[in-house]
Amino acid sequence: MAAHSVSPLAPSQYPELPAIAGLQLAAGHTGMRYKGRNDVVLMAFDRGTTAAGLFTRSTMPGAPVEWCRKILPRGTARALVVNAGIANVFTGKAGQQAVETTADGAARALGCRSNEVYLASTGVIGQILPAEKIVAQLPKLKAALSGTSWMDAARAIMTTDTFPKLATATCEIDGKTVTINGICKGSGMIAPDMATMLAFIATDAKLPANTLQALLKSANNQSFNCLTVDGDTSTSDTVLLFATGKAGNTPYEKATDRRLADFRRALVQVMAELAQLIARDGEGAQKLVTIRVTGAKNDTSARIIARAIANSPLVKTAIAGADANWGRIVMAVGKTAEPADRDRLVIRIGGKPVTARGMVRPDHDEAFATKHFRGRDVRIDVDVAVGKGAATVWTCDLTHGYIDINADYRS
Amino acid sequence: MAAHSVSPLAPSQYPELPAIAGLQLAAGHTGMRYKGRNDVVLMAFDRGTTAAGLFTRSTMPGAPVEWCRKILPRGTARALVVNAGIANVFTGKAGQQAVETTADGAARALGCRSNEVYLASTGVIGQILPAEKIVAQLPKLKAALSGTSWMDAARAIMTTDTFPKLATATCEIDGKTVTINGICKGSGMIAPDMATMLAFIATDAKLPANTLQALLKSANNQSFNCLTVDGDTSTSDTVLLFATGKAGNTPYEKATDRRLADFRRALVQVMAELAQLIARDGEGAQKLVTIRVTGAKNDTSARIIARAIANSPLVKTAIAGADANWGRIVMAVGKTAEPADRDRLVIRIGGKPVTARGMVRPDHDEAFATKHFRGRDVRIDVDVAVGKGAATVWTCDLTHGYIDINADYRS
Repeated sequence: MAAHSVSPLAPSQYPELPAIAGLQLAAGHTGMRYKGRNDVVLMAFDRGTTAAGLFTRSTMPGAPVEWCRKILPRGTARALVVNAGIANVFTGKAGQQAVETTADGAARALGCRSNEVYLASTGVIGQILPAEKIVAQLPKLKAALSGTSWMDAARAIMTTDTFPKLATATCEIDGKTVTINGICKGSGMIAPDMATMLAFIATDAKLPANTLQALLKSANNQSFNCLTVDGDTSTSDTVLLFATGKAGNTPYEKATDRRLADFRRALVQVMAELAQLIARDGEGAQKLVTIRVTGAKNDTSARIIARAIANSPLVKTAIAGADANWGRIVMAVGKTAEPADRDRLVIRIGGKPVTARGMVRPDHDEAFATKHFRGRDVRIDVDVAVGKGAATVWTCDLTHGYIDINADYRS
Repeated sequence: MAAHSVSPLAPSQYPELPAIAGLQLAAGHTGMRYKGRNDVVLMAFDRGTTAAGLFTRSTMPGAPVEWCRKILPRGTARALVVNAGIANVFTGKAGQQAVETTADGAARALGCRSNEVYLASTGVIGQILPAEKIVAQLPKLKAALSGTSWMDAARAIMTTDTFPKLATATCEIDGKTVTINGICKGSGMIAPDMATMLAFIATDAKLPANTLQALLKSANNQSFNCLTVDGDTSTSDTVLLFATGKAGNTPYEKATDRRLADFRRALVQVMAELAQLIARDGEGAQKLVTIRVTGAKNDTSARIIARAIANSPLVKTAIAGADANWGRIVMAVGKTAEPADRDRLVIRIGGKPVTARGMVRPDHDEAFATKHFRGRDVRIDVDVAVGKGAATVWTCDLTHGYIDINADYRS
C-alpha cells in the first residue's frame, strides 16, 4: 500500500489521553502486512469491567464481528485485541479458527476466559488472518502494558488513515469525576449504519452492561451514525465501550437517569469528536462537509436526505472543485423520494440562503458560495419544509485522492 | 464546459436510422449555452400518433417533466421539442412559463394543440430557460423537417455525452414490417429508477396509447432501469415512445398479446442498446461493467444488490485500477442488508468462480481476474444463494475523468 500524505484536515495537535484506572494497553508489531510500524493492540481490563458494543449491519460480517456478537451477552470484558492489515472477513471456517486462536492466546496470557476477550480486525477482505503471528506477540504486549499508551494504540490500528484519532472528556456522576477515552480508525468504506468503523472507548465509570449498551446506542446515533465518507458500509464496523468501574460512582441502572446526564453529554462529545476525525481523514479528503437537514417528515427521513446529499458523487465533486453548483443539492434531495416541498425548499451555503419559492433567490451571492466552497469547512443547510425532522451528517469531498488511494489499495 | 475526448467505449460505427412514416425531425441552434453546435430538436408527428412516457421519480422534477406528465393522459402527440444546455429544473413559476411558451410556439408553428407538444430539457439545474430563443428557431426547424435527421437530433441533445446514441430495430406485427428508432442522451447524474435520462423512441406501429404505455413500462424494466453511472437520479429523466400508426398493423389492445411478441422483443432490443450506450459514455468511463445477480430472494432484491455493487465507489475504483479486489464486492452485497448467504455466495469475475464456502477458492486465478479487469468489458456475476431472483445492471468504472468532468462542470 502506498503511503499517503497527511490529510490537510488533520487536527493541529492531538489530545493527551489520561490513564483510566483498571485499564492498560500496549501496541506491537506482527509483520503480517505493514513494515516498520505497529499493527496490533492489546488492551487489558481489570476484573469487573463491563462491555457494550455495536456492529455492522452488513450481511457479510467479518469473523471478529461474529465473535464479539457471540460474547457480548456476557457483558464483561478482560481484554481487547485489535490488528490492522488483514480484516479476517469472508474467510470461512479458517476465519473462525483465527478468532478462536487469538482469543485463546489472549486468555492464556492474561489469565482470563476467552469469552471475555474482544477482537477486531481491519484491512484487506478475503485473506486469512495469521493468528499465530498475533499470539506470538502477546507475551511482549503483556510486558509492555501501561496506562498511557493511547497514542501508540491509535497509530497501530490505522490502515489508509493518515493520522491517529483520539478523544477524551471528563464528566461527573454523583460528584465523582469520570473519564472517557476513545480511539478509532477509518478513512474509506465508511458509511456506518447502526455502528461504525473500529472505535474503542473506555471509561472508569461504574455502569451495568445493559445500561452501558443503552448509553452507547443512544450516543452512537449522535456520532458515528452521522458519518459517511463513501456510502460503502464496512463488513467490520465495530464500536466497543468498556467501563472499568473504578471511579466509584453509584452504578445507576437506567440509561436515561438524570444523574447520568453529564456522562451522556461527555460520551456523545468523545464519540462525535472521533466521528468527525474520521470525516477529516476520509480518503482523499480536502474538505470537511457538515450537512444539516431540517423540516423533514421525521428524523429518519432527515437522515436519509442528509446522507443522500453527503453520498452524492456529483455534490462531492462539486465541493472538491469549489463549484457552488447548488442544483446538485436539489437533485440529491429529490432522488431520495422522501417527502420534501420543492417550492418551499431552502438551501443555505455557508449560512446564506440560496433558494426561495422553488428557484434561486434574486440576491443569491454566487461569489460568496464559491468562496465558502474553497474553504476547508463546508456547511450546507437544507430545509425541506414539510415537518420537524432534523439530522446532521459529516462527510468530505470526493477528489482525485480517493481514486488514487482506491484504484490500487492492495498493491 | 470543457470538451471531453470521446469515450474509449464508443461504438466504432453508428447505425443509420431509417425514416419512420408519419415522423419528421430537425435539429437547430439557439445559442443559449453551447457555441458552434446544435442544441435544439423538433420532432413532428402526423395526426393519429399515440404517446407513452415514463419520468423521474425525483421529488424535484423539472418543469418539462411536469408538463409531459400533465398532457400524457391525452395519449396523442403532434410534436416533441428538446433542448440541451439548460434543464429548466428548480426554476419556479418562470420555469412553468418557459414550458408554456415553448409548447404554444410549437403548436402555432405546426398547427396543433399545445397539449400535444411534448417537451424535454437537459443541462444545468436552476437556470431559467430562455424559451423565446427556442421559439425563434421553430420556423427554421419546421422548414428543415425531414424523415432522416436522426443523427443530427442525437447530436443536438448531448451535454457531457462524448458520442451520439442511436439504435434501431425492425419487427413484425401481423406480417407487417414495423420499425422502431430510438435516440438518447446521458452520461452523468444517471441512476434511472422508473425512468431514465432523455430517451426518445418512435415507431410506425399502430398501437393504442394505453397499450403503448404498458409496453414501454415493461421494456423499461429490462433496459433503462438496468443502468447506473453514479447513483445520482436526475430531476429530468424522461423516456418517451411515439407510435405513428403508419405500419398498417392491427392495433392490438393487450400489451401481453402474443401477436405483439416480436414488437416487445424489438422494443427491448432498441431500449437496452440505448441504455448500454449511456453506460459506455458514463462520465470518465474507461470500462463497461455488466453485473448479474442471481439467487436473490426476488428480482427486486437482486436489483438492489446489483445496484449496490454498481454504485459502490470502492468497487468502481477497483475496476478502474484493474485491481481484482473481490472483497469489495462482498462488502457491497453485505451493505444492502438484502438476504444473502455469506457462506454459499459465489462471485464470478469474467466467468470464473472466485469464492466458495464463505471464502476465496483455493484455485482462484488472480492473474486471470486482473487481466479481465484490464479489459474494456468487465463481467461480474454474483449468486447470493437464497432464492430465484435475478437482475442485470450496466455501469462503468469510476475514474479521474469523472472528477475532472464534475469538479468543474459549469465553468
